[in-house]
Amino acid sequence: MDRSAEFRKWKAQCLSKADLSRKGSVDEDVVELVQFLNMRDQFFTTSSCAGRILLLDRGINGFEVQKQNCCWLLVTHKLCVKDDVIVALKKANGDATLKFEPFVLHVQCRQLQDAQILHSMAIDSGFRNSGITVGKRGKTMLAVRSTHGLEVPLSHKGKLMVTEEYIDFLLNVANQKMEENKKRIERFYNCLQHALERETMTNLHPKIKEKNNSSYIHKKKRNPEKTRAQCITKESDEELENDDDDDLGINVTIFPEDY
Amino acid sequence: MDRSAEFRKWKAQCLSKADLSRKGSVDEDVVELVQFLNMRDQFFTTSSCAGRILLLDRGINGFEVQKQNCCWLLVTHKLCVKDDVIVALKKANGDATLKFEPFVLHVQCRQLQDAQILHSMAIDSGFRNSGITVGKRGKTMLAVRSTHGLEVPLSHKGKLMVTEEYIDFLLNVANQKMEENKKRIERFYNCLQHALERETMTNLHPKIKEKNNSSYIHKKKRNPEKTRAQCITKESDEELENDDDDDLGINVTIFPEDY
Repeated sequence: MDRSAEFRKWKAQCLSKADLSRKGSVDEDVVELVQFLNMRDQFFTTSSCAGRILLLDRGINGFEVQKQNCCWLLVTHKLCVKDDVIVALKKANGDATLKFEPFVLHVQCRQLQDAQILHSMAIDSGFRNSGITVGKRGKTMLAVRSTHGLEVPLSHKGKLMVTEEYIDFLLNVANQKMEENKKRIERFYNCLQHALERETMTNLHPKIKEKNNSSYIHKKKRNPEKTRAQCITKESDEELENDDDDDLGINVTIFPEDY
Repeated sequence: MDRSAEFRKWKAQCLSKADLSRKGSVDEDVVELVQFLNMRDQFFTTSSCAGRILLLDRGINGFEVQKQNCCWLLVTHKLCVKDDVIVALKKANGDATLKFEPFVLHVQCRQLQDAQILHSMAIDSGFRNSGITVGKRGKTMLAVRSTHGLEVPLSHKGKLMVTEEYIDFLLNVANQKMEENKKRIERFYNCLQHALERETMTNLHPKIKEKNNSSYIHKKKRNPEKTRAQCITKESDEELENDDDDDLGINVTIFPEDY
């Protein structure tokens, strides 16, 4: 079976199966994005979460315990209010931790260049921890990930370690992150729509393609200082992997001849 | 210039330049690992951080402020004690946040299959947010990243929002994460040494290669339930991107004919 046929088979198998997640459905804030990707021949999504605030209770061994063994005291994909957390915390008898987990999305891609295009857009939209996985039997997956998290221990062996005032303050921070996360999802979706519509136009009108064969090439206006720093052994770089531009030279120049 | 020659040129340029990081040198806990990678023809490191605990002070606009505009009140790559944080917090006049940032490493790789091998080892060692970037002019980069963080707002507009007892408790959690991070680095380094030594042996004795041409293939003992779940549209999966196995089928089967 050729690569395209195999990809179509994987996609059909994957999309025909039931959603086995706890929630059982795609989160509201990413339904359109997920549908948009699944309508394209070159992509299908295998998992997603729009972003959530959750309160976990771990056993007394603390962080050693795997997450699947934790008790979920609260989970919401919406903004969160103090009283809900206070009520949920009453059920904690181990180490309760409040987390904000940003948007995450796994997209299987037909080939590496499809993953590169998506990767470039994810980075440009603020999802700076995104990365490609090339797996077994040629499966190429893009994981869209953000640097934008929050993880705050609140209680120890059932004893609350912070005040209600602190929980209120913390939820303000978490809710702000949730809002920012939503903006990034919208930015990513818009960016995707524009780029993929341009691709369709280019395919329908090959002459445009000749004139503009770099339609996918992401042209960064590079700061000369940054360009210089690009290939510097910046070990221990204090800005590493955070919201600034660590300038990996993300780009979607395609080089099929290299492999 | 062919791809190998170009890679050698990039490597020479990169390693001959000064380390422009704030610290100016590679963190002690990853020096051996970094040197080991830089001694191999197919890799060079462009940035690294062994893991650190840091206290940042942000302006009153809170999280909107880019990290490079923050004031660094404290940073340590070692275990951290309460008194150091208490002293540092006295200098905070905005929103101070304590963070634990785990090991991060960027490795430029000669070709995609080199990045795949490294990626597989990173995942197996617990660095589950690792991913490949294929960039401009064919630059192939592996980012080794962990899911293992901590981000705790401590003060608001200069006012401390938690007790000293909480800071003590929090540093226990952060220090435990630092220890676990160190174990993962060691695991990754050991894994790397074994795999790359095996590769050298195989190259020296091609007959072994014929007998064992899957020396790099990472064989997972798959749980049949997990195998079944592998291609399920697990949207909103509650275990997504965390310490459990989200079973992307990471593997290093190499398929140069696909590109």
